[in-house]
Formats: sequence, C-alpha cells, structure tokens
Amino acid sequence: MLHERIHRNDLLQRVISREEAASRIKNGMVVATSGFTKAGDSKEVLPAVAERALTHPLKITLMTGASLGHGTDGKLAEAGALAMRLPFQVDPVLRRKINDGEVLFIDQHLSETAEYIKAGHFPPIDYAIIEAAQILADGSIVPTTSVGNSAIFCQLARRIIIEVNTVVPLSVAGVHDIFSAGTYPNRTVIPILSPDCRIGRPSIPVDPEKIEGIVITNIRDSAAEAASGDASTAKIAGHLMDFFSWEVTKGRLKESLQPLQAGIGKVANSILRGFVDSRFHDLTMYSEVLQDSTFDLFDAGKLNFASGSSITLSESYYDKVFGDFGKYKNRLILRPQEISNSVGVIRRLGVISINTALECDIYGNVNSTHVTGTHMMNGIGGSEDFARNSYLSIFVTSSVAKGGAVSSVVPMVSHVDHTEHDVDIIVTDEGLADLRGLSPRQRARVIIENTVHRDYRERLQSYFERAVKRGGHTPHLLEEALSWHRSLQETGRM
Amino acid sequence: MLHERIHRNDLLQRVISREEAASRIKNGMVVATSGFTKAGDSKEVLPAVAERALTHPLKITLMTGASLGHGTDGKLAEAGALAMRLPFQVDPVLRRKINDGEVLFIDQHLSETAEYIKAGHFPPIDYAIIEAAQILADGSIVPTTSVGNSAIFCQLARRIIIEVNTVVPLSVAGVHDIFSAGTYPNRTVIPILSPDCRIGRPSIPVDPEKIEGIVITNIRDSAAEAASGDASTAKIAGHLMDFFSWEVTKGRLKESLQPLQAGIGKVANSILRGFVDSRFHDLTMYSEVLQDSTFDLFDAGKLNFASGSSITLSESYYDKVFGDFGKYKNRLILRPQEISNSVGVIRRLGVISINTALECDIYGNVNSTHVTGTHMMNGIGGSEDFARNSYLSIFVTSSVAKGGAVSSVVPMVSHVDHTEHDVDIIVTDEGLADLRGLSPRQRARVIIENTVHRDYRERLQSYFERAVKRGGHTPHLLEEALSWHRSLQETGRM
Ligand SMILES: CC(C)(COP(=O)(O)OP(=O)(O)OC[C@H]1O[C@@H](n2cnc3c(N)ncnc32)[C@H](O)[C@@H]1OP(=O)(O)O)[C@@H](O)C(=O)NCCC(=O)NCCS
Ligand SMILES: CC(C)(COP(=O)(O)OP(=O)(O)OC[C@H]1O[C@@H](n2cnc3c(N)ncnc32)[C@H](O)[C@@H]1OP(=O)(O)O)[C@@H](O)C(=O)NCCC(=O)NCCS
Repeated sequence: MLHERIHRNDLLQRVISREEAASRIKNGMVVATSGFTKAGDSKEVLPAVAERALTHPLKITLMTGASLGHGTDGKLAEAGALAMRLPFQVDPVLRRKINDGEVLFIDQHLSETAEYIKAGHFPPIDYAIIEAAQILADGSIVPTTSVGNSAIFCQLARRIIIEVNTVVPLSVAGVHDIFSAGTYPNRTVIPILSPDCRIGRPSIPVDPEKIEGIVITNIRDSAAEAASGDASTAKIAGHLMDFFSWEVTKGRLKESLQPLQAGIGKVANSILRGFVDSRFHDLTMYSEVLQDSTFDLFDAGKLNFASGSSITLSESYYDKVFGDFGKYKNRLILRPQEISNSVGVIRRLGVISINTALECDIYGNVNSTHVTGTHMMNGIGGSEDFARNSYLSIFVTSSVAKGGAVSSVVPMVSHVDHTEHDVDIIVTDEGLADLRGLSPRQRARVIIENTVHRDYRERLQSYFERAVKRGGHTPHLLEEALSWHRSLQETGRM
Repeated sequence: MLHERIHRNDLLQRVISREEAASRIKNGMVVATSGFTKAGDSKEVLPAVAERALTHPLKITLMTGASLGHGTDGKLAEAGALAMRLPFQVDPVLRRKINDGEVLFIDQHLSETAEYIKAGHFPPIDYAIIEAAQILADGSIVPTTSVGNSAIFCQLARRIIIEVNTVVPLSVAGVHDIFSAGTYPNRTVIPILSPDCRIGRPSIPVDPEKIEGIVITNIRDSAAEAASGDASTAKIAGHLMDFFSWEVTKGRLKESLQPLQAGIGKVANSILRGFVDSRFHDLTMYSEVLQDSTFDLFDAGKLNFASGSSITLSESYYDKVFGDFGKYKNRLILRPQEISNSVGVIRRLGVISINTALECDIYGNVNSTHVTGTHMMNGIGGSEDFARNSYLSIFVTSSVAKGGAVSSVVPMVSHVDHTEHDVDIIVTDEGLADLRGLSPRQRARVIIENTVHRDYRERLQSYFERAVKRGGHTPHLLEEALSWHRSLQETGRM
C-alpha cells in the first residue's frame, strides 16, 4: 500500500511518527508549509507541533500558501506556537491573536511570497512541511489538493518533512503543473496563453537528501462551509448577470466572456452559481481557489476549463469530486500561486476578477481586510493580484453588514487595499456602479445612487455635497470622513 | 527639406496650417495626443485649439501619454477647452481647474490607458494628434522624444493629424521600439528579457488614409526644470547608497544592482546622480522618463543601457543630448508606455523602483497624489506600475514639506496610492526604514525611529502608543488619524 505512495525504498525507511517529526521543529525556526485555503495543509506534523508547544517553549515563524484548516492554524494559535504568520489566514483564534498583537502577521499579495523568499527579503527557511499524494522515483512529489508555494518551499528549505496523505486519490497525479520562471537576471517568460496551457511538469522536484522524515496521514482537508447564498447574494448575482449581458450587447464581451477569477467566501461562490442558469457558455476560469461552484458549472456544461492553485470543497462536494476525479481532471490545472496569480499572465489573458469587499467608499476605494481600519479579518489574499491587472475589476458586497448596523459604503474607507485606480465595478444587492471612465466626483454620484442601502443614502449624499462645497479633486470632510467607523466602535452602529 | 521628413508625395499634399487643423476639432470630441512628461507633445494644433476655444464653444476630452508642456496643457486649461483629461498632468493652471471641479480628471496607472482604450472602457477616439520626426514611405511615423500611447492612438483613432517637428534631429530614428501584444483572446507574450531587448519595429504603423492633415513645427519640447538637489535630497541619496552597499555586502545584490526605475521630480533626479560617485557600475535602467541624470550616468561610465518611454531634459541637457544623439542612441530604447510600464516585464526583470511620496504613514502606506487627501497634485503616473511589481519598492521624500509646517510622515495618510503591501523601503533625509518582513506594528516602530523629523517624532510616537492600547492588527485612533491634515487645512501647519 505504501509502495503505491512512496516509490523509493530509501525514503520508505524514513517514515517517522508525527511526534518525532514535530520534535525536529525548534523554538525560533522558520517553517514553510503547504496549504492554500485549507486545501493540502499539514494534518499531522503541525498539529503535533501545537501539542508540543503546550509543554515546550516553541514559537515559530510560519509561512504558507494561504490559509490552513482550523486544525492547523487554529491549534497552533491556541497553543501560542506562532511568533509570526504570513501571508494569509482565516482562522477565528489566530485572528484574535493577530489583533491582540500576540502573533505578528504579514498580510501579503499571494503572488509575492515566493518573490520575497527568492529575493532574500525573508529569512531562510529551516523546514518545509509539505503534504503529498505520492513521492515518485526521482524524489519529486505529487501535491494533493493545492500547489500554493510548495514548489519554492521545497527548493529553498534546508530540510523537508513530507506528509503523505493516503486519503487523496492517486488519480490527482497529472492535475498539477509545476513551473518556475527562474531567478534574476535570467528569468524567462511564463508562456501561458490561455487557462488550459500546461507549461511545466506534474510533480515538484525535491532533493531526496533534504527529506528528513515522512509522516503518513489519512485525514481529509477541513471542509469549506457549504456556502449557500441568500437573498442579498442572489440580487448581487442578478445585477452582475445583467451587466455581463449588457457588455455582450455592446460588443465588448462574447457570451463566453473572458477567463473568470472569483474570490473566496459565500458571495463569490453564489455569484459563480449565477452563471448556471445564465445565457453564458464556454466559460473558463483563471483563478486561485476552485470552490464548489466551479464544479456546479462543470456539471451544468457551462465551464470548459478551470485553472487555480487549490481545490477547496464542502464535505459533500469533496466526495463527489474526489470520488470520481477522472471526470474532472482533464479540465483542471493546479499551479504554483506565483503562476495562478502572476500579474503578467492575468493581464495577458484579460481576466475578469470578482472579489469581495468589506467596504468601499464613494470614490471607489476598497477595504477588504480591516474592520474599522484596525482589526484584521483575513488578509488581502490574491484579490489585488487580480484586481490590479484584470480586464475588468469587480468588487461585490452586501450593502449592509451586521443586520443593517453597518453600511458597506462609507464616506472614506478606513483602510485601503484596492485603490480607486483598481476598481471598475462595484455591486451590492442595491445595484451596480460602473466606474469606468469616470472622475472621482462622477464616481461618487454613481456609487451613491446605485449601491447604497436606503437607510444610509441620504447621509452619504449630504456628506458628498458638503465636501464638494469645500472643493478638491476628491472632496472630503476630514473631520467627518472616518466618523461612521468611530461611531461603530463606540455604539455598535454607524 | 520637407522631403527628408515626409517620404510620400501624397502626404506632402496634406500639409495644412495649425489653424486649419485646429478647426477640425469640434466641441465634445475625444482627442488623443502624443506627449509624455512634456516630451513629444503637440506644439501647434493643441495650442491653436486653445486659441480657438476663446471664441468658439469648444470643450474636449483629452487623453495623452502623460503630462504635456505648459504651452499645451496650461493653455488648454486656461482657455476652458478641457472637459475631461487623463491620465496624468503636472500643470499649475490645469491642477487648479481639476481641484475646482471644472475639469474632470482621471488619474490612471500609465500602463493602463492603452488597455482601457482597447477594451472599449473609454469612448472611441475622434482624432489623434501625434508629433513625428518623420513620416516614412509606408506611412508609418517615427516619433520624437517620447512614444507614450502614440501607437495605440494611431491604431484606434478615426482620424489622425500629424505634427512634423523639424527641430528634432533625424538621428532619433531607430531609438524607438514599437510593439503590441495584440488583443484578447490572442495576446502574445512581451518577450523582453533585459532592458536592452528590442522586440518591435522602429516606427509606428499608420493607415495613410486616416491622416487628415500634417502641420509643420520647429518648436522644442518645454524644458524640464534643471532640478538640482539640495541638502535634503543629498542626504536621501546618501542613505540609499548605504542601503544598496549593505545589500551587496549581504549578497542579495551585485554591484550592477538590478534594472533601475526612477520617478519624476527633483528628488528622483538627484538620487540617480548619487550613483555617479558610488561604487556601483554597469547599471541599467528600465524606467519611464529618462531625465538629465540618466545622461550624467552615461557620461560617468556608470550606466550601460536605459529603456524608457520618453526623454525629458532641461534646456542645456537638450542641447547636449540631441546635439550629438549618435553618442547615446545605441544605449537607449524608447517604448510604448504599456511596455515600459508592463507589470509582467517589471516583475520579470526585477526592477528596483524609486518613486517620490508626498507623504507616508506609520504603517507604510503612501500618498503620492492628494494634498490633505483632497487636492490633486499631479497624479499617480507610473509609480504604482513599478512599485507593485518591482523587486524592491522604494519611496523617498523629504521628512518635512513647506518649510517644516508639514510632516511627510503622518499617523494615517489622507489618500492611499500605494498600499502597505507595495512599499519595501521608505527614505527621508532623516534615514531609511527597511520594512521587508515586518508586520504593521514593527513597521511603525522602524518608520518612527528612522524617517520622522525631530519636530514631529514625539507626537507620532505618542499616537502610535495610544493606538496600540486600543488594539488591532493596525492600531489607529480614528478620531485623531486625520487630525494632522485637518490642522494643516485650518491653520497652515500640522
Ligand atoms: C471580505 C471578506 C471578509 C468577505 O467574506 P464573505 O464570507 O464573502 O462575506 P460576509 O458578508 O459573510 O462577511 C464576513 C464577515 O465580515 C463582516 N463584515 C462584512 N462587512 C463588514 C463591514 N463593512 N464592517 C464590519 N464587518 C463586516 C460580516 O458581518 C461577517 O462577519 P461574521 O463572520 O461575524 O458574520 C472575504 O471575502 C475576504 O477575506 N476577502 C479578502 C481576501 C480575498 O479577497 N481573497 C480572494 C482572493 S484569495
Ligand atoms: C510626489 C511629487 C509631487 C513630488 O515631487 P518633487 O518635485 O519630487 O518633490 P517636492 O518636494 O518639490 O514636492 C512638490 C510639491 O509638493 C509639496 N509637498 C510635498 N510634500 C507635501 C505634503 N506632505 N503635503 C503638502 N504638500 C507637499 C511641496 O511643498 C512642493 O510644493 P511647491 O511646488 O508648492 O513647493 C511627484 O514626485 C509626483 O507627482 N509623484 C507622483 C507621480 C510619480 O511618482 N511619477 C513617477 C513615475 S511617472
């Protein structure tokens, strides 16, 4: 059985227990691990590190592809095992520790972590802990449900621990496409001309000398929440479908649109589902995370191809997809995140990006990370890799949050992740604001008219009018600009 | 004489007066014109349009490469001839009208204007007005001191007026490299692997049928200010040279560094000059605007090659450079700005970008456009094309402005052009803050300690400490965050 998974006798000798592996990780080390939006993370070694940290002084710097499952990120945070974490997370316990200043967090564009490591901007990696479906005869490894930063971690880490996960079907082999553009000054082009371009090899090269131990697991990825939409997300999807139809009518888009990227969370998932009953067809995705909705679109015959860096599914979709992976495999590619999120490729392909905002302001700046400008939610993830370079940059959000106590459209966002330069379209349940070709004052009128909840519209209109009286290209009342957020902090309402 | 400049008899027939040409431009039209940081703009037709606007109802939308000379942008603004202007400007009169709301301004990444036009996000172009050094036998045109967006304007405009400028030496022919990656879904790669890669043709293809008129001029580009540095810029340059030396010592950079980009203005110019007496050699530039300092570096034997989109010189440098252009030509390439500023190429080459901030905040966000968050200075230009995708993103600024009345480091920037994610290094005359690998609270400490003027340091420190008590990943006191700017508005001091 294990021979199916590990094709080298010398490496079969290196199978060790999770505790033994965890004991190699020392206080102060820099650890890099597989895992992207919960998919393909460490299920044994890092949880064992968390357990060990309860009794040993053990604080590490942990870098990943993106977020890990609660069993990993949450457990490590709970145990106080994290000194620093990057570049993304979604865990409630970790989030609290980050906001308390107990864990240092670097919130980074997902395409850039690999760049920073290669450039030496970050300290060297002591250990890489990488989940694999198989180790091949040449020592290279077949990743599981994500690629993330695993290839660069394997290349640059001093030592490697591999977790072979026997619950992942062997049929995942072949879905991955591992490519590196090399290092300065001899970097090559990334020759992707369409989402289905294969440019690399199916497994991650690994120097077998560096493999210090192999741990066997059969634990599944943490399931994503089965993110079913609600009335608000259905309205958002409806506005967006109308907009795409309009673009087709005007001759700017075809019914196959252009490669789609969709962010994480329930809003993005529900919008993608909106395509199932739409006029659009022969769609493609050039995205990061492939969620349940991607497979709905395959099943509905709407989607031809999807490229991403991970597959993150709810419980029942996991059974469906990995129970019969052959059905989907030839229409999927999983890439390193520096390729799935490559700024040059995104621009070359003309991706239509759809990401979720926490809040936006009347001039089109978007905050997707910081509640009241101070408290980290998840991180910017890959949203700005896409928004900055896409053909059309779309942001979606419900017009209100917290049962109406919070307006998602405010005078001035309290933190900026996506500047006015990078936002073309804003959609809420109220409607759609098309900002292309508009100056700030024009944008304000369109945003206030189309996207703001009625409870907040008049106040926002009044803010804008009073600001205009004071003048400026982007009129603001500085003493009032952040007062909505201040009121939220003090009274729980804007 | 004119036969040297216009190599087709049919086109020689189409020479018309500047007034005749200007009369073709009607109220409400969309006009696209050559010109990038004053280089290669229209010296006859657009000034004549401005004159005509004094007596005729005439308001146009004007799009360019970047800024035009005062004789063009300033005159048009003064005459009230501009309804909308994009993507960049630096003129005092135009600036005032933008801030008064009289001229609508779209402040856009310089790499993106061509994308927006091709995508149909902007309205179609009625006239392109393009300065040329020559019109060749195939109708194609040799640009002058800039390429900017001229190639895409010629391709997509309904009609074209050419200004043949006889003051520009014929020897500029061959310095330009015109390339287009094509349109969706069949875009190709931009195959630039080093700053000296030539990938295109030396002239801009033009359909001769579309050429409605040719105007002859012999007026020079507006001269750039001879931006000599001062004590503050010398200190900034010194800190930066020390930093580069440190990076060489640590083995992260070689003495040839990586391709350099430097922004506009006196600070950037003076920093580049800092390389003249440095240990660095065999430098290259992959930049936008090549200023006086580029030629100082050539003359000092420090610079091997420079790629840009325009050459913008002071009076005396203009004589020097264009008086003997053969001396420099084989070490220069001028490219369309979607190529000089291509996000994918910038990342591939590992550009070191150096841009100027108006202000930055304690967490590393940078404002380079809006004074007190409301009043447009120039525009974002290409700074974020580079900052977002560079190997090292450096921002420079004097620690104070307006004779000390303004601190360039503030609790929270009043407008964000470059987010914390996109800023690696901040340098003022006080010192250098290296933000790589730091979380927000760590960044705040480094910025306050190293870059803030002593008159403001204690207050900033106190802000940060009180904010930390309130908590959050990025601590702020919302009621106080913009109070420094509010005080500047009310009292003229922070
Ligand atoms: C912005 C983001 C948090 C929205 O998540 P979502 O699940 O789609 O949307 P929700 O409406 O459920 O919002 C999530 C939470 O934020 C809260 N929220 C939303 N808007 C808010 C606002 N303006 N102020 C305060 N809280 C807000 C919601 O109430 C909810 O809180 P709860 O979990 O306590 O109920 C999420 O998309 C994200 O992290 N984006 C950034 C990263 C990214 O875009 N990645 C994509 C490429 S990797
Ligand atoms: C930011 C920018 C305006 C600085 O210009 P500069 O000539 O290098 O620097 P200066 O220090 O002379 O500043 C220019 C003006 O801004 C003012 N200024 C600078 N910092 C200020 C601040 N924090 N608040 C208010 N005014 C400020 C200066 O006082 C000066 O005003 P003045 O002309 O009335 O004296 C300029 O670099 C710019 O427009 N940058 C954005 C575009 C860009 O980066 N392009 C590069 C690629 S195209």
